[in-house]
Order: sequence, then C-alpha cells, then structure tokens
Amino acid sequence: MIILGLDPSLSCTGWGVIRAEGSRIAHVANGQVPTDAKAPMAERLAALQAALAEVIATHRPDRAAAEEVFVNKNPQSTLKLAQARGAVIAACGAAGLVVNEHAARLIKKAVVGTGGADKAQVQAMLKVLLPGAAIGGADAADALAVAIADAHLVSRI
Amino acid sequence: MIILGLDPSLSCTGWGVIRAEGSRIAHVANGQVPTDAKAPMAERLAALQAALAEVIATHRPDRAAAEEVFVNKNPQSTLKLAQARGAVIAACGAAGLVVNEHAARLIKKAVVGTGGADKAQVQAMLKVLLPGAAIGGADAADALAVAIADAHLVSRI
Repeated sequence: MIILGLDPSLSCTGWGVIRAEGSRIAHVANGQVPTDAKAPMAERLAALQAALAEVIATHRPDRAAAEEVFVNKNPQSTLKLAQARGAVIAACGAAGLVVNEHAARLIKKAVVGTGGADKAQVQAMLKVLLPGAAIGGADAADALAVAIADAHLVSRI
Repeated sequence: MIILGLDPSLSCTGWGVIRAEGSRIAHVANGQVPTDAKAPMAERLAALQAALAEVIATHRPDRAAAEEVFVNKNPQSTLKLAQARGAVIAACGAAGLVVNEHAARLIKKAVVGTGGADKAQVQAMLKVLLPGAAIGGADAADALAVAIADAHLVSRI
C-alpha cells in the first residue's frame, strides 16, 4: 500500500509518500511545493495542483491523507488554506484517490504515542520510523507524519 | 473579450460566459455543475475542476472573475466553499487565466445600478442585458452577473 500524506498550504505544500505493509512502513519520497507569493492566486493554485499531479503520477499512491482542517481565527488565513487544500485535494480526486482526514491529535498520537507531542518530537520520531530519509523541510515532515498516521489508523479499521 | 464569470460552490458551481466589446455585452453560454453530495470530497472537487476545464477549453475566455468570498459564520461552510473555490480557480490558473475578484455590492451595482439589489432584481436585469439567453439556474445567473460586472468594472480601469 502506497500512501500519500499531504500538508496543504498556499505558500508551501508539503507531501510525503510511504509504503506500508502490515505494521511495517518505509519512506518512498517527500518534498515541498512553494508558490510565488507575488503571483496571482489562480497561478499559485494551479502550480500546487500541477506539482501534486506530478507527484501522484510518479509515485502512484493507493490513497492519500491530510490533517483535518484547522479553522484559523483569521478568516482570510482560513480561506487561503482551504483554497490551497481544494486545489490539492482536487488533484487527488482527478487521479481517483480518496483523501482520508485525521485530527491533528490522532496524527501525533499515531506517530509519537501522545496527542500532545510537539513538532520537534514528531520530527525526531520520523527519523526513527523512516531511517535514512532526507526530509525536505517542516512541511514535508508534517506530510510524512500524516501518511504514517494514515497507515496506522486506517489499517486498524 | 470573452469573460468567464464564476459562482463556485461545492454543491453546485455556476458559470457564465459573455462577450464584451467596449460597452456592449452578449451572452455566450452558461451552466451549472452540481456534484454528488454522497461522493467523497476529492471526487467532488475533481468533478468541479474537470467541468470547468471543459468550459474553458470550449469557450476560451480571456479572463475570469468571481465574487469576493463571503466568510460565513459557520466555519465548516466557509471551508467547503473555499475548497470548491480553490479547485475551480486552479482550473482557471491551469489555463493561464487570471481570476478577478469583485465585492458582491459592486457586482450588484454594476448589473442593476444599486449595491443593495436583491437576487430577483439581478435576475430581471440579466433578461434585459442578455436578451434571449436561457439561464441554467440561480447559480448560473449569479455567474453571468459576475461576468457582466467584470466587463464593466475592469474596462474602467
């Protein structure tokens, strides 16, 4: 089972691909897609989508996953995030992928063992769970964490 | 100048295409893209995007426009709307279109002459401005109003 984890955002979307076989997981690839803050919104969203379509075409995941949306108190931030998320999820849908959603707390619990883990703990655990993986940045790390959580959470159903 | 007006929403996205030459406008086409409420989000967003990509390929607009986002008090509604909007705007960006944004009040003012116009007034004015056009529904009507407003507002710059 190949799982694509996503950390969508307009400024920089993280993605991470893992292979899961039973309880064993292995790193496949990860990366980040930054967009040009000076470009028009339509161009930025299209760039995110095109990059994700390429990731999907290259790694052919069986399913995808993203963190449940955090509704920011700043409505403009929420809108930007949700629009980026829409473009990224549409790229998954166009490839026939379902995108599972997991609460941030469950993702941390699945990766670190506690829902209250901080980013540093998650990143330290990624080094243990995916030894040798070169991780492209904080957004890619978050995306890999989502993929790992999805492997744990969904296989338990 | 061919203008694509958009009224994005997850349940049903309206679109309308007009031709604008100086102060003269003419109807080209309009329609609505409903999505299956029971389908996964990724499938719905991909369906919206594919339908809009087809509209763009068919009518080859020079630019697009949408109403400025209304931030709903219900965060879940805002998220759904913004995700749909992201998928639709990404389809425009993929075709190289810029998407202009106009405030609802300015759209009504451009179409009816007053920013406080209600939906019935907007729809009545569409019949005057685009005589003979068969309008696919309320969402398509809103999208045509956005396109007309864009023709007026942007040509004045």
